[in-house]
Amino acid sequence: MFEKNLLLSYLLDQYGAVLGERHRTLLDYYYNQDLSLAEIAAEIGISRQGVRDSIKKAEEELFFLEEKLHLHERTLKIAKASERLLALPLSNEAREAVQTLIEAAELTPH
Amino acid sequence: MFEKNLLLSYLLDQYGAVLGERHRTLLDYYYNQDLSLAEIAAEIGISRQGVRDSIKKAEEELFFLEEKLHLHERTLKIAKASERLLALPLSNEAREAVQTLIEAAELTPH
Repeated sequence: MFEKNLLLSYLLDQYGAVLGERHRTLLDYYYNQDLSLAEIAAEIGISRQGVRDSIKKAEEELFFLEEKLHLHERTLKIAKASERLLALPLSNEAREAVQTLIEAAELTPH
Repeated sequence: MFEKNLLLSYLLDQYGAVLGERHRTLLDYYYNQDLSLAEIAAEIGISRQGVRDSIKKAEEELFFLEEKLHLHERTLKIAKASERLLALPLSNEAREAVQTLIEAAELTPH
């Protein structure tokens, strides 16, 4: 469950901007702020089952986007490749250019 | 018009996998294969106006995704940063690590 939470948080980070406001808010409450279904239901004034159904739909949307665009998978690969590269001896100029490339490749929308 | 075509082709490349099959096909006919609305209408058996409306909706979806995820914008930045980096003197090991990073950062879904 913890691992699933973490993955969903990452996906929400990558694709949250594409979700509707309501879905984004629900997932943020559930995965980032760790509220229970009952607490979210009380907060936004719908049934616990309604919260559960909406969260499920929003999760499916995130998984669909990752399946199609692979942004989370790419972020992990970029992080690994960057780490390897920056551990090598580089000139100051090259190091600076690498930092620019890493910033350009940073996939989480600003 | 040519510039618009080119941008739409890029966006279709970035986000095509997210579109429904029908929208993806229509945009591919129109922007990549350069068919006219009338030719597409004949090809798939709907009215010219129907083709036009569907293409407009699919384009809006692509622009929405780019506004939210900026993948095309990032691809351009990555290309520029990569070019700059690879023009510098680098050890073979560093050059190889840069290539791995560029491949990882390559945003067009495979």
